[in-house]
Amino acid sequence: MAAEKPYRFLYPMRVVLITSKYGDRENVMAAAWCFPVSMEPPLFAVSVSRKRFSHELISKGRAFAINLVDAKIREKAVAAGRSSGKDRDKFAELSIAREYGKLGMPLVKDSPASIECKLVKEIELGDHVLFVGGAVNIIERRKAKGLYHAGGDDFVEI
Amino acid sequence: MAAEKPYRFLYPMRVVLITSKYGDRENVMAAAWCFPVSMEPPLFAVSVSRKRFSHELISKGRAFAINLVDAKIREKAVAAGRSSGKDRDKFAELSIAREYGKLGMPLVKDSPASIECKLVKEIELGDHVLFVGGAVNIIERRKAKGLYHAGGDDFVEI
Repeated sequence: MAAEKPYRFLYPMRVVLITSKYGDRENVMAAAWCFPVSMEPPLFAVSVSRKRFSHELISKGRAFAINLVDAKIREKAVAAGRSSGKDRDKFAELSIAREYGKLGMPLVKDSPASIECKLVKEIELGDHVLFVGGAVNIIERRKAKGLYHAGGDDFVEI
Repeated sequence: MAAEKPYRFLYPMRVVLITSKYGDRENVMAAAWCFPVSMEPPLFAVSVSRKRFSHELISKGRAFAINLVDAKIREKAVAAGRSSGKDRDKFAELSIAREYGKLGMPLVKDSPASIECKLVKEIELGDHVLFVGGAVNIIERRKAKGLYHAGGDDFVEI
């Protein structure tokens, strides 16, 4: 095929922070493969590699939250995408302030908006798992441009 | 919840033209809910309302193609999103030139790139169906900025 990484044809893609929780473990990861899949009911999907610690937390905790990213939290979001939370608390390590939503999900307090989702479906697709969640709680903190990943170290605000 | 249309939080989203075929019927539709879901194998998903004619063609034809949109075909892409192909041939009506891919899919000849996908999974999610396809053929015709839908009649090139 023409492209080494076919998925790059759809870039730039919006960066979000996905937060999750199971038992006393909480995590925050950066993701670009997150999108709406249904209007009514409002459903969102996020594609997560099985290697990620968040995969385990979302699968066992049956919930996740989507937190938008803008310039204000850009550096923390990029850093959150570069390390695993398996052996550390990334919220503490990266000084990402959290608050808790109606479902008990940890949310990124400085995010422009957070969408708490209850897991409704988990689908194995190649080397990723697609988690589909129903939006049960939306917190909009401010209007903001979004951060989009253009590939590698390139990001653009839209 | 805070927002009337929760999916708008993730906008702007990239616009693509999804082409499909079953028997002697072919169609082209505009979609913004299209995204990669797996790296290896390369899989793409597109969320399609059950009301769309393309839903029937993709489900029966077991394939679809993703065609990128840039300024050159912007007007045709927006027009393709505003009518149904159920009772007409939108390719002919909107003067969208087509060529055929390895899978026999009609492709948008003036698109910057087309990705032909073989259907691997069809998942009912709320009022939409998520079609997941494996990329089997990629044609890159030129490098180009993408058209992103910012909501309503607003579009932005990135």
